[in-house]
Amino acid sequence: MLQQAVAGKLRAIVGAQWFKDDPESLITHSYDGTPMLQTLPDGVVYPENTAQVSEIIKVLQEHRVPVVSRGSGTNLCGGTVPVQGGVVMVMHRMNRILEVDLENLTATVQPGLNTKAFITHVEGLGLFYPPDPSSMAISTIGGNIAECSGGLRGLKYGTTKDYVIGLEAVLANGEIIRTGGKLMKDVAGYDLTKLLVGSEGTLAVITEATLKLIPPPKTKKTMLAMYKDLYGAARTVSKIIESRIIPATLEFLDNPTIRVVDDFAKLGLPLDMDAILLIEQDGDAETVDRDIARIAEICAGENAERVSIAADEAEALKLLTARRSAFTALARLRPTTILEDATVPRSKIADMVLAINDIAKRHGVTICTFGHAGDGNLHPTATTDARDANEIHRVEEAFAEIFEAAIALGGTITGEHGVGLVKAPYLEWKVGAAGIEVMKAIKHSFDPNNILNPGKMFAKSARKRVVLHRG
Amino acid sequence: MLQQAVAGKLRAIVGAQWFKDDPESLITHSYDGTPMLQTLPDGVVYPENTAQVSEIIKVLQEHRVPVVSRGSGTNLCGGTVPVQGGVVMVMHRMNRILEVDLENLTATVQPGLNTKAFITHVEGLGLFYPPDPSSMAISTIGGNIAECSGGLRGLKYGTTKDYVIGLEAVLANGEIIRTGGKLMKDVAGYDLTKLLVGSEGTLAVITEATLKLIPPPKTKKTMLAMYKDLYGAARTVSKIIESRIIPATLEFLDNPTIRVVDDFAKLGLPLDMDAILLIEQDGDAETVDRDIARIAEICAGENAERVSIAADEAEALKLLTARRSAFTALARLRPTTILEDATVPRSKIADMVLAINDIAKRHGVTICTFGHAGDGNLHPTATTDARDANEIHRVEEAFAEIFEAAIALGGTITGEHGVGLVKAPYLEWKVGAAGIEVMKAIKHSFDPNNILNPGKMFAKSARKRVVLHRG
Repeated sequence: MLQQAVAGKLRAIVGAQWFKDDPESLITHSYDGTPMLQTLPDGVVYPENTAQVSEIIKVLQEHRVPVVSRGSGTNLCGGTVPVQGGVVMVMHRMNRILEVDLENLTATVQPGLNTKAFITHVEGLGLFYPPDPSSMAISTIGGNIAECSGGLRGLKYGTTKDYVIGLEAVLANGEIIRTGGKLMKDVAGYDLTKLLVGSEGTLAVITEATLKLIPPPKTKKTMLAMYKDLYGAARTVSKIIESRIIPATLEFLDNPTIRVVDDFAKLGLPLDMDAILLIEQDGDAETVDRDIARIAEICAGENAERVSIAADEAEALKLLTARRSAFTALARLRPTTILEDATVPRSKIADMVLAINDIAKRHGVTICTFGHAGDGNLHPTATTDARDANEIHRVEEAFAEIFEAAIALGGTITGEHGVGLVKAPYLEWKVGAAGIEVMKAIKHSFDPNNILNPGKMFAKSARKRVVLHRG
Repeated sequence: MLQQAVAGKLRAIVGAQWFKDDPESLITHSYDGTPMLQTLPDGVVYPENTAQVSEIIKVLQEHRVPVVSRGSGTNLCGGTVPVQGGVVMVMHRMNRILEVDLENLTATVQPGLNTKAFITHVEGLGLFYPPDPSSMAISTIGGNIAECSGGLRGLKYGTTKDYVIGLEAVLANGEIIRTGGKLMKDVAGYDLTKLLVGSEGTLAVITEATLKLIPPPKTKKTMLAMYKDLYGAARTVSKIIESRIIPATLEFLDNPTIRVVDDFAKLGLPLDMDAILLIEQDGDAETVDRDIARIAEICAGENAERVSIAADEAEALKLLTARRSAFTALARLRPTTILEDATVPRSKIADMVLAINDIAKRHGVTICTFGHAGDGNLHPTATTDARDANEIHRVEEAFAEIFEAAIALGGTITGEHGVGLVKAPYLEWKVGAAGIEVMKAIKHSFDPNNILNPGKMFAKSARKRVVLHRG
């Protein structure tokens, strides 16, 4: 329960209707996109502007009340579950595009802006904002920044980090800082912009962002290559890159995923294939034609059973659907779907997929794998049932081994989902004890009383998925 | 003077011949590429590997001895001047290319590696490492990382930051951390990689770097556009970008620079022009041809007096020479050359150049301006004489006003040179008091006893260029 004094002060800042502590509001902000995690907050506040955010943070700091700032909560790492209670600060009222600057190719936006709405808006102006997380129809730009979201276009175009060039943020003491600007080059001090991107709401509350836009590619072509040999598919990925071609999209689906997707979307995919690669190239027409022809040659040379190039946009969309519907299709199978994002150097994809299959088999669990092959960012996805404690335990053990395998291959525990609550027990595996100490010191330097999204990123000890209840 | 105990321990770590405290060694490491700054260190040490760096740092930490790690010292911000004495750690012995990974398109290198040698090596393998600071014939990759060096290709390809994807570094307590990896996506914790890039040796000593390589462009074309109207040149820059073309290079020279360069390099440049733009596009042949033709149209539309497209590589090289020789040509004029890098949003270039001209006139000093127009990164360069205290004072006052003007236009005090000693008094102008506090807290969290390159980035108070002597 929030002290009445705190609730009263928050109401005074935002107006009574924008602070809520009724049971429905608390319950609807007790979880996010991550399965099996839920904790009730003590209140929910909806600021209208940066000044209100600053005032809210000052009150919460004074009373040492935890605060979780969030957008739509589509993250998959438990990043916005209020594990220590306190206040959830929803940024949806701050959802405006403040400016699109056509001379400097930048946009300045508020954090609560919907990602898809933003992308659609800039595309309407003949510009391009590449980060395209699968959640973009629901997610917000602020959430994307907090988690450094990636997507299908990451290989060629990079992730959210590569497009955030300036921020306004409220610190734990309520002070407002501005970093970067409409500047392609700025080395004035430490790069706070890039430090805040991906900091998961643990260092500051982002209240405004200046984003880099780029000219859109003029054309695009899509193709599918199908393999009975997993290594053939993996070698194709490396060979394409070795041939000095960086495709816009280079996605992978394993056999179990192919079966599930085809059953769901009725695409007529061949069910006897061990792997499918979905490949897109964009750019000027001549370049795209040349690259796609060369990629088709490489696929054939690596024993692809079939290669089909989409004749038109409708067919391309159909192929894309195979990949885009993977999560939805898998989610129909069992009550609980746990999607992870172990990531390896792209040359290690086949090894990683085989390791995942082996681990799943040993633990007697179902894990399908699809993902961004071009950047080694795989999504091993367990279909399971949260009510079956024994099976969930086996899934947890399997994922622990998967993270271990990724790191052994020179990879990481998370490519684009973030650490949050779910990966916190594994962070030390990637960054080492000294790395954890440095990160904790940074956290302490920003937020000495640990009120900003406490309990995230740094685990107390356990390495297991734990269903948390509180409040 | 270094305590004999410390000197003895350092000799024991690296071998007697790799620790030096003779006057010649101290003097040659008392300054860097920045004019008018000199402080003697107490010793110079040359580690051979990471383990030695770690041992050295532990000794220096124990005795609270300042340490300035450096490569070739080509920086222009006083970044490697040992202002508080102590030990200069020269990384030149750690200069190997450890690996070029053709499947993952990465290179792993030691910090003392010469930038040009590295670029030449990867070009020989048919790959491309874009950061090309003007000092690259002499500079090291470690120094480039410390300063987040830019160059002529920054507009299209980004700067050093965009190519560093993994680091090994020694912390102030001697512990070794590894960040990132051969990974295009990695969100495991705070982004220590990007935080260390541009941290100017104040947070850790970089001992190894994994760099992203990209496929090289297939062709390149070079052109020159000449204007009697500064605003026409500036509008051309914005118009090119607005036309959804991002050139590989988009450089600017003002009239005084044109005169000096032509006198030096005998290029037959027209001396009655107010501005020259040097423009390059690279990529596939059809794209380059189309872009260059469109750019030529834009130049003509903005009242360019002359537009010449290089017929071949020899002619292109001649045009590039005009820009590349600017600093050398200017340096011949007077005994002291002070090159700055105030940076503005690209739409503000004309305003900035006019502000610089006005400021120079009011202070009675000579400032020529050239630089990377495409990313708003200008190099106002004063030709002066360090022995003339009165003139130097006026130059300092002029630069202070130039930084102020850049910030007023939404710009920054440094685009690619770093803060170091020279810009420290101005950092607060860009990042604000709260920003300084955050940066100081980060510094303290990495280096509580302030032994890593102390006296840099954060100024005690003064905002002036000061000639420092000590030791």
